[in-house]
Amino acid sequence: MTMRAVVMQGGGLAMADAPIPQPGSGEVLVKTLACGICGSDLHCVAHGGKLLASAREVAGIELFDPSKPVVLGHEFCAEVVEHGPGSRGAQKVGTRVVSAPFLLRPQPVTLGFGGLDTPGGFAEYMVLSEDLLMPVPDDVPSDMATLAEPLAVALHAVNRGGLGSDDVPIVIGCGPIGLAVIAVLKMRGVGPIVAADFSPSRRAMAAALGADIVVDPRETSPYDSWRSVAAAPDPTRFGRQTPMFPAFSFRPSIIFECVGVPGIIQKILAGAPPCSKIVVAGLCMELDTFYPTFAIMKEVDLAFSIAYTIEEFAEAFSHIVSGRLQVGALITSHVGLDGVPDAFARLADPERDAKIIIVP
Amino acid sequence: MTMRAVVMQGGGLAMADAPIPQPGSGEVLVKTLACGICGSDLHCVAHGGKLLASAREVAGIELFDPSKPVVLGHEFCAEVVEHGPGSRGAQKVGTRVVSAPFLLRPQPVTLGFGGLDTPGGFAEYMVLSEDLLMPVPDDVPSDMATLAEPLAVALHAVNRGGLGSDDVPIVIGCGPIGLAVIAVLKMRGVGPIVAADFSPSRRAMAAALGADIVVDPRETSPYDSWRSVAAAPDPTRFGRQTPMFPAFSFRPSIIFECVGVPGIIQKILAGAPPCSKIVVAGLCMELDTFYPTFAIMKEVDLAFSIAYTIEEFAEAFSHIVSGRLQVGALITSHVGLDGVPDAFARLADPERDAKIIIVP
Repeated sequence: MTMRAVVMQGGGLAMADAPIPQPGSGEVLVKTLACGICGSDLHCVAHGGKLLASAREVAGIELFDPSKPVVLGHEFCAEVVEHGPGSRGAQKVGTRVVSAPFLLRPQPVTLGFGGLDTPGGFAEYMVLSEDLLMPVPDDVPSDMATLAEPLAVALHAVNRGGLGSDDVPIVIGCGPIGLAVIAVLKMRGVGPIVAADFSPSRRAMAAALGADIVVDPRETSPYDSWRSVAAAPDPTRFGRQTPMFPAFSFRPSIIFECVGVPGIIQKILAGAPPCSKIVVAGLCMELDTFYPTFAIMKEVDLAFSIAYTIEEFAEAFSHIVSGRLQVGALITSHVGLDGVPDAFARLADPERDAKIIIVP
Repeated sequence: MTMRAVVMQGGGLAMADAPIPQPGSGEVLVKTLACGICGSDLHCVAHGGKLLASAREVAGIELFDPSKPVVLGHEFCAEVVEHGPGSRGAQKVGTRVVSAPFLLRPQPVTLGFGGLDTPGGFAEYMVLSEDLLMPVPDDVPSDMATLAEPLAVALHAVNRGGLGSDDVPIVIGCGPIGLAVIAVLKMRGVGPIVAADFSPSRRAMAAALGADIVVDPRETSPYDSWRSVAAAPDPTRFGRQTPMFPAFSFRPSIIFECVGVPGIIQKILAGAPPCSKIVVAGLCMELDTFYPTFAIMKEVDLAFSIAYTIEEFAEAFSHIVSGRLQVGALITSHVGLDGVPDAFARLADPERDAKIIIVP
């Protein structure tokens, strides 16, 4: 039995026929119903070698095997088709499910970077670990359910910020992660939320997802916008000082870097108010430069953020199910499997799409 | 009436006769008894223009006026000589005092970067704000009292780290600030403390001040040393995970960067265990480079630290007075005012000196 899949090989994407994967012990075979395309999928195709080298050098892991076909896709919703050996069968055949993209094997597998035997969601079928399955209620569409994954990334970034209720967040970059961060901040009730992006359509989406002040940074500094709304009503409560900024009385600023290109951290350091906390959620693969003096004199905190815990994934999904997280606006279009290469090209243009969902 | 002073002008130091400064309202005239030489004094003479430009660009302040003579010295102990107008006289003439290096004027002055009318401690006399004076008990020598200032810097750096009792600290660079950080960590009872420096004499001082494991980073990685002592006795308590490091069970690492040269942050990012917190206390004035991927995949926190609050200064001084902070080993020699230019030259060699105290 074969299935259709989009495979990455030799730095490109192509349609292929592949064997339907076999569920192992405690695993289930699922039919992919929907799968989002993530920025890291784009990275992987465009700069796979660099990503591989980074993961090897930093963490000592082999993220994928570049000599073999890889099936991307780690933001998926699927339907249980068959239980593997030793499965409890807790989710019956026909149940729609989501799962954090991992296989709980003795040698854990990150789904979405595996080969044909453990494909990601850019294929008609996948195998998942039974213990990670979460059923999707009938009233939650499959494409909405896939958003659990990017929302978990955003939830984790917000958690990394250790946000207090007085903090005034600034979101730099309104791609899918920046937009998801805005949605999580809105849900948590912090604000006003300041957001900045060069793209008019992304600014419109930022407003739709809950940003209160949305600026084009070519015209308006997001830090000036922060200043205009964060002036402390009670200086005795918010008066802070650093040696370089002895009189400074604003609500705290927390800045989410959701761009991930060289130079953006220094730009943020230059604009940031003193004592800012910066959560770096953008994935910059290049060498970057900055002036430590800016960070030192302002006594900035930088918290680097990637992915999420299983608990954060479950929490993000529960908020989508309950409707507390209103993120449908993130999805801008749907394609079939053979539309994937074209979708990758379209995602380079921020005016056209935010999140594209594959429906195999 | 004139006094002798060491003045900085035109990128050099010279002896000069200067008018004795006049205490303003709420101020006192003091005779300088001892004054430490700080790394930022060296920076100021060697790279004054860069320091000025940074302070202007980052904080919008003029740190000093390069067109006029500047009297450095912000780590001082002094004796009250005369009360200015409107002084309460709380500290009687003859009392030895320390003070955080600020004048509480409508336009606050940072002592140690002022001109001849508000000189720092590289002069026979200074003016201080009465409200900032702390009397020095008889059994505390004047040179020891000057250490309140660098210890306040170290105390602040440790506070910026938000240290927990389980954390295993790693101190990179055992100059005066690194050594002071070790002393504060020892006082707080955290440990074992790992310390690294290229210099044998600084490593000996690190051990004297309380470091438990002291390494030459050319021979032994401080991160390997951390690994050998921080393995978690109870993985359920310390087991943490990041997507890149799923099985990771060590006591938390907190790394103090006390070097302040370009490249050191990337070196630390490369060596640091996952989930490390890095407190950057070194003052690097140059453009620096780093790979964000290292920080992101390890989910590192960077907390940049400079100076201290008035409360932290008072706390550091109180610990010196009580003897809880044992830091006499920091002082390696004493010079008169006319020995200052030579002392600056000597401080370039880490084998010779740590803290040199001026006795005017």
